[in-house]
Amino acid sequence: MPSRRRPKTAGARRERVGVWVFGARGGLATTLIAGTRAVAHGLCPPLGLLTETELFAGVPLAKLDDLVFGGHEVRPGTLVDAAQEIHDRNGTIPLPVLHAVRKELTAIDKNIAAGTLVNAGRTIEEVVGRAAGGEHLRAVVARLERDITAFLRKHELTRCVCVNLTSTEPHLAPDKAHKSPAAFTAAIAANRRTAVRPSSLYAYVAARLRLPFIHFTPANAALLPAITALFVQHDTPFMGMDGKTGETLVKSSLAPMFKYRNLRVLTWQGYNILGDRDGAVLAHAENKRAKVETKDGLLPAILGYPLHTHVGIDYVPSLHDLKTAWDFVHFQGFLGCKMSMQFTWQGCDAILAAPVVLDMVRLADLAQRRGEGGPMPHLACFFKKPFGVGEHDLHRQWHALVEYVGRVRLEQRSRRNAT
Amino acid sequence: MPSRRRPKTAGARRERVGVWVFGARGGLATTLIAGTRAVAHGLCPPLGLLTETELFAGVPLAKLDDLVFGGHEVRPGTLVDAAQEIHDRNGTIPLPVLHAVRKELTAIDKNIAAGTLVNAGRTIEEVVGRAAGGEHLRAVVARLERDITAFLRKHELTRCVCVNLTSTEPHLAPDKAHKSPAAFTAAIAANRRTAVRPSSLYAYVAARLRLPFIHFTPANAALLPAITALFVQHDTPFMGMDGKTGETLVKSSLAPMFKYRNLRVLTWQGYNILGDRDGAVLAHAENKRAKVETKDGLLPAILGYPLHTHVGIDYVPSLHDLKTAWDFVHFQGFLGCKMSMQFTWQGCDAILAAPVVLDMVRLADLAQRRGEGGPMPHLACFFKKPFGVGEHDLHRQWHALVEYVGRVRLEQRSRRNAT
Amino acid sequence: MPSRRRPKTAGARRERVGVWVFGARGGLATTLIAGTRAVAHGLCPPLGLLTETELFAGVPLAKLDDLVFGGHEVRPGTLVDAAQEIHDRNGTIPLPVLHAVRKELTAIDKNIAAGTLVNAGRTIEEVVGRAAGGEHLRAVVARLERDITAFLRKHELTRCVCVNLTSTEPHLAPDKAHKSPAAFTAAIAANRRTAVRPSSLYAYVAARLRLPFIHFTPANAALLPAITALFVQHDTPFMGMDGKTGETLVKSSLAPMFKYRNLRVLTWQGYNILGDRDGAVLAHAENKRAKVETKDGLLPAILGYPLHTHVGIDYVPSLHDLKTAWDFVHFQGFLGCKMSMQFTWQGCDAILAAPVVLDMVRLADLAQRRGEGGPMPHLACFFKKPFGVGEHDLHRQWHALVEYVGRVRLEQRSRRNAT
Amino acid sequence: MPSRRRPKTAGARRERVGVWVFGARGGLATTLIAGTRAVAHGLCPPLGLLTETELFAGVPLAKLDDLVFGGHEVRPGTLVDAAQEIHDRNGTIPLPVLHAVRKELTAIDKNIAAGTLVNAGRTIEEVVGRAAGGEHLRAVVARLERDITAFLRKHELTRCVCVNLTSTEPHLAPDKAHKSPAAFTAAIAANRRTAVRPSSLYAYVAARLRLPFIHFTPANAALLPAITALFVQHDTPFMGMDGKTGETLVKSSLAPMFKYRNLRVLTWQGYNILGDRDGAVLAHAENKRAKVETKDGLLPAILGYPLHTHVGIDYVPSLHDLKTAWDFVHFQGFLGCKMSMQFTWQGCDAILAAPVVLDMVRLADLAQRRGEGGPMPHLACFFKKPFGVGEHDLHRQWHALVEYVGRVRLEQRSRRNAT
Repeated sequence: MPSRRRPKTAGARRERVGVWVFGARGGLATTLIAGTRAVAHGLCPPLGLLTETELFAGVPLAKLDDLVFGGHEVRPGTLVDAAQEIHDRNGTIPLPVLHAVRKELTAIDKNIAAGTLVNAGRTIEEVVGRAAGGEHLRAVVARLERDITAFLRKHELTRCVCVNLTSTEPHLAPDKAHKSPAAFTAAIAANRRTAVRPSSLYAYVAARLRLPFIHFTPANAALLPAITALFVQHDTPFMGMDGKTGETLVKSSLAPMFKYRNLRVLTWQGYNILGDRDGAVLAHAENKRAKVETKDGLLPAILGYPLHTHVGIDYVPSLHDLKTAWDFVHFQGFLGCKMSMQFTWQGCDAILAAPVVLDMVRLADLAQRRGEGGPMPHLACFFKKPFGVGEHDLHRQWHALVEYVGRVRLEQRSRRNAT
Repeated sequence: MPSRRRPKTAGARRERVGVWVFGARGGLATTLIAGTRAVAHGLCPPLGLLTETELFAGVPLAKLDDLVFGGHEVRPGTLVDAAQEIHDRNGTIPLPVLHAVRKELTAIDKNIAAGTLVNAGRTIEEVVGRAAGGEHLRAVVARLERDITAFLRKHELTRCVCVNLTSTEPHLAPDKAHKSPAAFTAAIAANRRTAVRPSSLYAYVAARLRLPFIHFTPANAALLPAITALFVQHDTPFMGMDGKTGETLVKSSLAPMFKYRNLRVLTWQGYNILGDRDGAVLAHAENKRAKVETKDGLLPAILGYPLHTHVGIDYVPSLHDLKTAWDFVHFQGFLGCKMSMQFTWQGCDAILAAPVVLDMVRLADLAQRRGEGGPMPHLACFFKKPFGVGEHDLHRQWHALVEYVGRVRLEQRSRRNAT
Repeated sequence: MPSRRRPKTAGARRERVGVWVFGARGGLATTLIAGTRAVAHGLCPPLGLLTETELFAGVPLAKLDDLVFGGHEVRPGTLVDAAQEIHDRNGTIPLPVLHAVRKELTAIDKNIAAGTLVNAGRTIEEVVGRAAGGEHLRAVVARLERDITAFLRKHELTRCVCVNLTSTEPHLAPDKAHKSPAAFTAAIAANRRTAVRPSSLYAYVAARLRLPFIHFTPANAALLPAITALFVQHDTPFMGMDGKTGETLVKSSLAPMFKYRNLRVLTWQGYNILGDRDGAVLAHAENKRAKVETKDGLLPAILGYPLHTHVGIDYVPSLHDLKTAWDFVHFQGFLGCKMSMQFTWQGCDAILAAPVVLDMVRLADLAQRRGEGGPMPHLACFFKKPFGVGEHDLHRQWHALVEYVGRVRLEQRSRRNAT
Repeated sequence: MPSRRRPKTAGARRERVGVWVFGARGGLATTLIAGTRAVAHGLCPPLGLLTETELFAGVPLAKLDDLVFGGHEVRPGTLVDAAQEIHDRNGTIPLPVLHAVRKELTAIDKNIAAGTLVNAGRTIEEVVGRAAGGEHLRAVVARLERDITAFLRKHELTRCVCVNLTSTEPHLAPDKAHKSPAAFTAAIAANRRTAVRPSSLYAYVAARLRLPFIHFTPANAALLPAITALFVQHDTPFMGMDGKTGETLVKSSLAPMFKYRNLRVLTWQGYNILGDRDGAVLAHAENKRAKVETKDGLLPAILGYPLHTHVGIDYVPSLHDLKTAWDFVHFQGFLGCKMSMQFTWQGCDAILAAPVVLDMVRLADLAQRRGEGGPMPHLACFFKKPFGVGEHDLHRQWHALVEYVGRVRLEQRSRRNAT
């Protein structure tokens, strides 16, 4: 992955940053990796990327071209296959991009190791086409760690951000193993497989290796108290969960308006239809539950009162990644008059999510360099269920990010002036 | 208009506040007047009214029941007729409300005097059914002033807010008479009728009488430099223009979302269809122009770049006041991928606007009591083209209001503590 | 129920026709009864009624004013209460109509007897607020028959059409009792309650009494082979099932278009949201199943190939009877290009259904007078699952009706000419 | 253009059919030509093509592979350029198709001659980038004829269908030259340029050469009485005008439904937004007028009464060929209740139109071989303003086509049996 922009010179040592992706050949990961390279090469404008806007001028983020990708994956195939499939189905990775990054994708494939399917649930196993083997949990953890450390060594990386982009897992029931790092470690040692899902192991490994962690899926199994406590102990930044990129994004942008005018929302019905592996996995009741939960809570939080809400997710194979959502809002105003608004959102999920992941990778790396361990509440605007943040109003979340960036920039300047 | 809540006692002198409405029997004014009485009587919950929410707890606003209505009107008929027509067509003034306030409406009718049609344009004249007579401008101004002062005297009012709710007038061409209060007064003296429209005269009279003024229509003829300067000289609050209650409200709530994600909006097409007098007047090209102009400017202001926009307004008699808008947003994200979103808004215009007017009447009265003359930028969130405010992001506008209210409340407290 | 139009004279004996409604105080029945009276009185134009259009000129249908209503009902209350509730919630029965027909509704209430709840299912029992008692099936049948014959006697009626407008029942499992009239009668005698639902008993009674029967609900329990055979034996017209009045109506009108252009429909997703008792009952899985089944079959029938379809029905209390449906159609054309269309339907269910019921009552009465027993395939256009008709294309169904009416008219003429 | 399917053998002489396209390198023509070749090669299924469905089994249509394309064009560039541009903008001509037909397109380019811009109007001239020269009309006609006859000779064609796919021209004012073939010929001889537009000359030349003619655009200048009379005199089939492929298609499919239920349509508002050259041309008032007229007339024709309608067309460059339409239908039913329906149509114009053109080319060729001269009313279902046909109900139009095909098939069989 040679940089065209910053030649490696003796004086200015180039600092490359690892991006370790759990679910590294999924639709989102493939779009993320191919897209980052395309933007780094200047093939596409950096649309969708907030960190490439004026807002971040003067903020010392890792260069896109300095990101080195690797990851874990449970499915067979290559990144090029995955990218080609995306092109064929959605056209969202344009052919010129695919051609330009083909070789790089093949090189990155060498950084991708076998993931784990421990207790992933039947649906994911069916989609993947195989079940978890009998490997002891301790062995799994050790193996996952080895894969990542080998990657860091191979590419001489001192920094690396982990991102969870795996398919939505079924809800994991509470377990005493989740209570503390010690309890969790004991469960691993005891090979208590029902206490974990793949996401738990991935997050645990990231925490153990002190690598910042972005949990982008709705799985409840990753940010268990045991694991977030470990991140905090290790002073390592993390954030999640469930990237906010479509219908929920619109919801959290629109709902405050009703509050501003004291218009009482009586009903907010939302229907999402989508295809692809994501849709297939979510078509299964147990996997859907996790997703719906994170999507459904924010309206009462924004509006301040209970209301009739519904979030449907249905599998429509012909749509592939072109997610379509219809929302119907019934509200009441002056003199009790009922009125309504409806919207249809038609967005490519991976196209919307990939730059958000990339933004957060850079911000997590920045946080670690700045010594900010634990949850990153300034990233709340990117999540349906932001860890530790009760604020769901997109605009207040946004202002929190703007404020954070302002603080960073200020400190940058005073540091520079100090020198 | 007897108060059921606060009996007039010798000790606690009741402070009533006038609300002088230009266009006093139009659909919006009728809904405003009948609705205020209905809410004051406890017949309807105060939905749509921001000033009745928790946000304003502790802010010394005029009581709804203490508002005394009067105004100018060019059309014949009674308030009861107008309310009945609204009930028959839209059902938005429910029958029980109509019955309950019928007598009060008849009483208020006595506070309504003949307005002016000077240079109102052919469309409005046709809708009204007659043209302006030959009355000299100086006589018109004197008459309008007399009407208002008589109203104040009759009801023993020391405070009164003026609101312009007249039909959308055609654009008024710039004129040297608009440059200063003196120039304007000279034009009145010289009977230069083409330099003014009814809105100009109404606003001028409010400024002369030092009454706070809310300009709720899109007419450019009211807040002329000559007139706003007079408000400032007289230390009298005013604000405008063009109430933001429907499609534009949604727009200004939604557009920031695209900015937050660096999604490039390529196109924002908006189509509004509506009936009633409002629709009939706007169906005429010259009257529509004023409206479209105030609706169309905010997207580039929020997004920060030029884009393809369109705002259509078409007359659909069968809809009456049920305004329906369809907006189509075409946007581009990561890897150049084009996506879209569309919304349909179905709202009753007068029902959405009336409580906003009421909120602003109370806030304008508050401002005057607090000695705040000139424009009221904290009311920007209520207008499509807020006077002197470049910010169109609904959320930032809202925060400005919240901040203002917080400041008022703080001062209230310290004043109370001081006592 | 005095007629304003046809004075009762000695010479021209007035022929009145009974309309016996199962579910006589439900939303649909109330709208039907109040609406028929309103139209008969000339208070409302006969919109929605096909039998009042030019198409039926010269066809000897029963006069609206000659229809005499009665029926069975399981819920308490009066027709006036029911009509008032509809006015308050939906406004679809306007106040002037309510006032004008109030007395007639009270009179009709005397024609309404207690229905049956035998094996109606838990959901309906909960909505009604009580369960079926222990009355033997034979006694139930005898009682229902007595109620109807008493009504006929009281009003001196020789003709009467029965209509089933009860709430959607759960699916009734096939049973040997359904195989023949004899088997069914035996099951009644044996008090085998699980072999029937209320709809079965209502239909059975109509068939026994040789009264034409319109089955307007999606319950599979009414048109059992045992019962339809009895109608045929008795040379009595009947038709069903599940009135086509909203989303499915649009579907059956639109789907042929895709066939005409060889555009391949990949997916047709439909989401229905509605409130009221209907919505509450359908919110229950077992009751919904019956409905969804009749809604979902028609697309493959029209298009001629299997496709991905979905029909959702969700309960949204705030909507009351204002049913809203969103359909998304994904289709493929030349060069494999995928395109889409979506529609939103906002219609008042009872307002759409009532005139269709009325049309069919008149047509069923006509059929009986013409000696046409058995199923009425010319009414297929009014049903989601027309009995014995495979054709779901609305336009072909319509042409079948037009042809039938033409035939009737022709025979009328030749009969007249013969005289 | 070698056939892969029917090898040229000595015995079975292959009958090829010319397709002469006016506007041969426009978006629609390019999609038509590239698409026909792609389907002929078996690269894409024949979706969108009615003539490839079971309906036409046994009907002796020209083989797709036997169609030879040529035409007139006023713009510079090549078919390959045009196809590449379509791929880049819309993706509707997939890359594999483009690669597969590239050579054939280059060969067809040799069959494309310079068209004419006589009196085409300023908008088209601006889009094309040049104006008509001073060539005398007689010379233009002679030149156009020479081009076509040379094409026929070169490819040894005895049959050829002409299709007008040029950009929408402004309305042509009535002129005495339009009254008869003789008057028209005289106007040509007199070089009366304001009496014609390019479409007039193209249609005239087709009529003179006795070649069947499909007028697919909304220009009123082609099927002038003078010209259709000439087609009739020459016993040559023709049909038009304005292909029905999007919003109007849906309209004509949906509107009958309201009639079937006696639901009174109060308002039908339609808004079309589209990009590309088509959109740019239609953005000009004079060109739009022609289009709107053909789109707007059909509702009263179907419904049988006047109603409030509106058809908007706006230019949205970012959409390119992805035409989007929003229609709002306001209707009234039982008891005067107002309800509404809205739909959004998102279709690629050229993708929808190309197979319709191809269907009609084959049917026009069939008609000529069957000796059917003059208008082809059985093609009414394909046009917004079918020549000489008052029926706009899509379903009745469709049945007319089905009936025609049935008649042809029957005659085929009896002919075969006779042999």
